[in-house]
Amino acid sequence: MHKSKILIIGGSAAGIVTGITARRSDKNAEITLLRKEEKVCVPCAIPYIFGTLCSTDKDIIPDALLSKNDIKLVKGEAISIDRKQKIVQLKSGESLNYEKLVLATGALPIIPAIPGANLNNVFSIKKDVDYINKILNVLKKVKNVVIIGGGFIGVEFADEFKKKGLNVTIVEMLPHCLQLVFDSDFCIQAEKKLSELAVNIVTNSKVVKIIGEQTVQGVELSNGKQISCDMVLMGIGVVPNVKLAREAGLRIGQTGSVWIDQYLRTSDENIFAAGDCAEKISFFTNKPTKLKLASIATWEARIAGSNLKKLEMNQKGVIGVFSTVIRDLTLCGVGLNEEQATELGLDLIIGNAITMDRHPGCMPGAIETKTKLIFDSETKVLIGGEISGGLTSGEIINVLSVFISTKATILDLVTFQMGTHPALTASPIAYPIVKAAEDALNKQATYSQQKKKIV
Amino acid sequence: MHKSKILIIGGSAAGIVTGITARRSDKNAEITLLRKEEKVCVPCAIPYIFGTLCSTDKDIIPDALLSKNDIKLVKGEAISIDRKQKIVQLKSGESLNYEKLVLATGALPIIPAIPGANLNNVFSIKKDVDYINKILNVLKKVKNVVIIGGGFIGVEFADEFKKKGLNVTIVEMLPHCLQLVFDSDFCIQAEKKLSELAVNIVTNSKVVKIIGEQTVQGVELSNGKQISCDMVLMGIGVVPNVKLAREAGLRIGQTGSVWIDQYLRTSDENIFAAGDCAEKISFFTNKPTKLKLASIATWEARIAGSNLKKLEMNQKGVIGVFSTVIRDLTLCGVGLNEEQATELGLDLIIGNAITMDRHPGCMPGAIETKTKLIFDSETKVLIGGEISGGLTSGEIINVLSVFISTKATILDLVTFQMGTHPALTASPIAYPIVKAAEDALNKQATYSQQKKKIV
Repeated sequence: MHKSKILIIGGSAAGIVTGITARRSDKNAEITLLRKEEKVCVPCAIPYIFGTLCSTDKDIIPDALLSKNDIKLVKGEAISIDRKQKIVQLKSGESLNYEKLVLATGALPIIPAIPGANLNNVFSIKKDVDYINKILNVLKKVKNVVIIGGGFIGVEFADEFKKKGLNVTIVEMLPHCLQLVFDSDFCIQAEKKLSELAVNIVTNSKVVKIIGEQTVQGVELSNGKQISCDMVLMGIGVVPNVKLAREAGLRIGQTGSVWIDQYLRTSDENIFAAGDCAEKISFFTNKPTKLKLASIATWEARIAGSNLKKLEMNQKGVIGVFSTVIRDLTLCGVGLNEEQATELGLDLIIGNAITMDRHPGCMPGAIETKTKLIFDSETKVLIGGEISGGLTSGEIINVLSVFISTKATILDLVTFQMGTHPALTASPIAYPIVKAAEDALNKQATYSQQKKKIV
Repeated sequence: MHKSKILIIGGSAAGIVTGITARRSDKNAEITLLRKEEKVCVPCAIPYIFGTLCSTDKDIIPDALLSKNDIKLVKGEAISIDRKQKIVQLKSGESLNYEKLVLATGALPIIPAIPGANLNNVFSIKKDVDYINKILNVLKKVKNVVIIGGGFIGVEFADEFKKKGLNVTIVEMLPHCLQLVFDSDFCIQAEKKLSELAVNIVTNSKVVKIIGEQTVQGVELSNGKQISCDMVLMGIGVVPNVKLAREAGLRIGQTGSVWIDQYLRTSDENIFAAGDCAEKISFFTNKPTKLKLASIATWEARIAGSNLKKLEMNQKGVIGVFSTVIRDLTLCGVGLNEEQATELGLDLIIGNAITMDRHPGCMPGAIETKTKLIFDSETKVLIGGEISGGLTSGEIINVLSVFISTKATILDLVTFQMGTHPALTASPIAYPIVKAAEDALNKQATYSQQKKKIV
């Protein structure tokens, strides 16, 4: 019996899930996963190594996920793909042949081209255990840290570093931290929480220079101001790792990622791509987007893995669901925010609600939840949402993700059949999604009346 | 300008939300809410008055919800409806006229017809502050409590009473506690947790007699065994409170509730009904069901309230979403369980998953989550789900409720675009809903192969 040969390059979330999924659709396939790392970190939890878990050992994806799915693990680095011969060449001199190849090569941190970026104690975030251990070691000796970039990574690291008693300054280019995902009212809430934790926040500012001889001693901002520090962490984003794909002549998309079709095939029908290296198409605009998330990577991997044997699934574009926690404040966003939707030229109906996440509000542990829903005023369809509140917000945002994927309208949300419980959720009278949708319904009425008057 | 006159009878969840919704659709209506209670308890949190909140004052729905929506509150008891004159007669001798009337008269606890049911210190659960205060007073003096009925009420009271150091025995008629909602594996998990809390559980047993002279001294079971106690709490369910409706000649449905149409109108088009007194139609069978939940009551109230001015919304049947917590174990169910679906003659595909609710699994506070998804094997559509785990399960079950309402299939769940975060959710590799759907997909393949062989 012929066994199809599947080769996956990349051992993080996308690679692993592609392998597991491929095994589900083909019990007999010979599946090999090639990765260059000795061990693989749980990527989203890297910040939590520093204040919560306190060791890289606790943040490892177990290789058992591969072995129990009969996926052969090869440790090595791919240096080229011979698409004609269907062979991947490794740095070690060995080679691996394939029938179907999956690129899950991920992304690499952006290192800004500023003086001093190569000084000692200047770090970026790499999914590399040895590198992270190095940061852990340095952290024992430093006291003042500057984080460049106030996105999710920057904010989460700041919170963790404060748990270790460090002095932390975030330098953010935009007017607010987390502004790529949240509207400003939510960003301000995040910044307030960070300030309570005594994190210094410098926004509207760029680091133009890292100061020091051999080891970092400070940073210089665009306005000339200097901040002294003994460590710098750069969290300003990532770029897709497409070297292998580009050199193999595969088409590269508008965002610099590997171009893929609806089945997640690259321009070579025997080569698929999934995860941070693959181009994403927005669910809302049908245009390429730079969104990158581990959750999206696994979603793509489930589609790619299913399609290796037979084209079974296609993707309808990424929605994007984001969550973060700053000490006791959870912030979540899904789809488009108000600013993004307005930039697309959409006319919006916004629904807001402030509710408690348990009921009655005096139940122990109850936290105030702020919900914002964004509807297209023409179709009344939900296109985005933002929530701040307690830990359960991380699943409430998932409720919204299902609603968005099914193009639910204001009325669908108002008549949502949610379950409630005093110790678990808001009251059924004030369930946040329903409450915010009701607010949108009120505004819809006003909106229609105004429109009538204008006409 | 004519102001339409809306009268709502009943001041709990259904009544309040009907009023708020009616106000949204008609800014000028004259809305009156008639209730007999001086104050109204948050109904679902009544168990939590006893061990967590420790006072009825903390479990009151604020009347401000009415006043800020310009809803006039009248305290009094309706004794009859004159449908021809459109007048409701009160016990006080006063009367109120209406154009549209809403019955939100709720349900009354079932009191079993057994000897001793009227002894001192034998209680049922009434949404009545004075009555609950009486139980609170008695609780100070008793040590041994028997709870008749191991449903949600019974189980939640047992947990609360244990927090007060009481000896608690649950007597349940069925083979398991919580069996009306959960399949037995989940019931067993609940019973195990109750046993850890030192709650005595007697299943497959009925209380046939309550023993005592003036005050309860014990109960006698169907097998002749006696359990001594100084308090009995009966939590064996409720019956719809339809006296007013029946006497007014309104049609009563198969389940003994007030019959309503898809717009929530009773057999009199000027009288609507919502909440525990109104008949529910199952989303799955299109047949009447006895399901009663505060969350369903508010859902109905949002529909009824919208339809008072103009028939705007119709209901597509109740799904039923249940949640409870026993100390640190959350149990949630939605739609049909395996037993119920099998009884309907459906052929099922079941997907199971065990995952951690944070990632990596060693994140502080991480709890194991067990997920069971129930699909119709013919259509592959999700018809039910059960989850046990941590606090966020209460919102994960809501994710499933949206999926059910949109008739999502196994593949829809496998390709769910969920958001994840280490401190908030399972890993994107092992998100519980996706994982259990993947398990169902595996079984679907096996199932299809077996079918082929049989054919």
